[in-house]
Amino acid sequence: MKFNKITIVGLGLIGGSLARALKESNQVGVVVGIDTDEETIKYAFDNEIIDEGASSLNEVIYDSEIIIIATYVGMIEDTAKAVFEIATDQAIITDVGSVKLSVVSEIEADLPDNLHFVGGHPIAGTENSGVRSIDPKLFKDRRCILTPTQKTDLTAKNKVKSMWELVGSQVYEMDSETHDHIFGIVSHLPHVVAYSLMNTVLNAEDADQLLDFAGGGLKDYTRVAASSPQMWTEIFKANKDQMLKAISEFKGSLENIEAAIENDDFETLKEILEKAAKTKRSL
Amino acid sequence: MKFNKITIVGLGLIGGSLARALKESNQVGVVVGIDTDEETIKYAFDNEIIDEGASSLNEVIYDSEIIIIATYVGMIEDTAKAVFEIATDQAIITDVGSVKLSVVSEIEADLPDNLHFVGGHPIAGTENSGVRSIDPKLFKDRRCILTPTQKTDLTAKNKVKSMWELVGSQVYEMDSETHDHIFGIVSHLPHVVAYSLMNTVLNAEDADQLLDFAGGGLKDYTRVAASSPQMWTEIFKANKDQMLKAISEFKGSLENIEAAIENDDFETLKEILEKAAKTKRSL
Repeated sequence: MKFNKITIVGLGLIGGSLARALKESNQVGVVVGIDTDEETIKYAFDNEIIDEGASSLNEVIYDSEIIIIATYVGMIEDTAKAVFEIATDQAIITDVGSVKLSVVSEIEADLPDNLHFVGGHPIAGTENSGVRSIDPKLFKDRRCILTPTQKTDLTAKNKVKSMWELVGSQVYEMDSETHDHIFGIVSHLPHVVAYSLMNTVLNAEDADQLLDFAGGGLKDYTRVAASSPQMWTEIFKANKDQMLKAISEFKGSLENIEAAIENDDFETLKEILEKAAKTKRSL
Repeated sequence: MKFNKITIVGLGLIGGSLARALKESNQVGVVVGIDTDEETIKYAFDNEIIDEGASSLNEVIYDSEIIIIATYVGMIEDTAKAVFEIATDQAIITDVGSVKLSVVSEIEADLPDNLHFVGGHPIAGTENSGVRSIDPKLFKDRRCILTPTQKTDLTAKNKVKSMWELVGSQVYEMDSETHDHIFGIVSHLPHVVAYSLMNTVLNAEDADQLLDFAGGGLKDYTRVAASSPQMWTEIFKANKDQMLKAISEFKGSLENIEAAIENDDFETLKEILEKAAKTKRSL
């Protein structure tokens, strides 16, 4: 047994998949799940995703070595504060939020001296959500980013790292700001773009006709734009500064193409497209 | 035998796939392939994609009932003019170009009285190109748009329709301008956006680091941005007016999201995302 007891707060796609993956590892004594939705708890218990569960933070989490906050980004801070009230001395709290700077700095500001916090972000997910979509292999061979600060306890960080390795992840470390910059561009911006593209179609007078022929290039945006609006609203909000920067840079790239078309500068246009296509092939 | 002889000019992904699909139908006496690349002709002949081939338009195309111009959009007009010089009386010429208004009007302006032309666009393709990527099932259950005009001969149009049905396509008719508007938004615009997104990453100071983490949302744009830059330059050029309109509408949608983030108006942001996600799920 690597861990006696681990608690996961929020049994959605990420939290539920992690719970089940930890159970399958046979290296965790007790996996506890907390979710405000009673039906989710029942489903998770019936399907052996968790060993114990509750619909609120209570004594069921006592003596957990690690408590993972797996709620949407907008709820992490409040959930952490509730966890602080009940966690046992020396417990390690971590999260799975897609945005780190605002989350980590707010939590560290309130962290009691006898508890530890390590920011985390597993790079995994699908367009689906909820406990019924879980996949215990979701984290296998995927990266998990930890964003320690100067305040982070080394032993706590290594325990969180070891937990993610238990479910097959490759653990990377970087500071929160770098994290938010990188994922602002490679993950959050593509979502903004996909939502914008869908709305371009929907706002057209002949939207129905356009949707009828949406099989072409538009199809590739399906997975991205079908993701949870609530979750993405919270991510865009929490990563506001990086998002505005990324959107502005994207508009610059878009306007380069627009200008080349407008000015009949098709040599430049071809060079722009060649640059993008070449790199794509090498990915 | 539905057709005695059909010629395809340009044995790329579309032309080569069509040649092979027509041969597999066993309803075409002779399938002729023309391609300026000698190696392509040899490959197509050796792999039973064509019955006869040549690297230039010559007597091998005599007596073809249908001549399909399957070059990139920018070469369709010149290729059609060369075909006019050599096609047999009453031959039907058609194309597979992704843009129709400019192509169809230019060709009709030059069309000799004893030949017929029908604009066409099979909605099929992959990010691959060239005769080695062909797939005889490429058109099966896919749509093919024909864009007849007042000048189009009804018998000629029905023969082209019947040829596409032979390879499994569902044939639709619309006018060229409607076609270019629809595909400008559902196909060409998503390509502009994918190229712009890739270039946002590539133009960043830390492009290598960003590419290293490109697995997230960016991955979904791979197929689109890896398409042939030459082909897409020609498409954007030929569909210039519709592209500029589509890009401008897309920028409007993007700026709605940008403004909501900037103004901390997260209620509106969520509504915008919900609209996009809801429709995506119903596609």
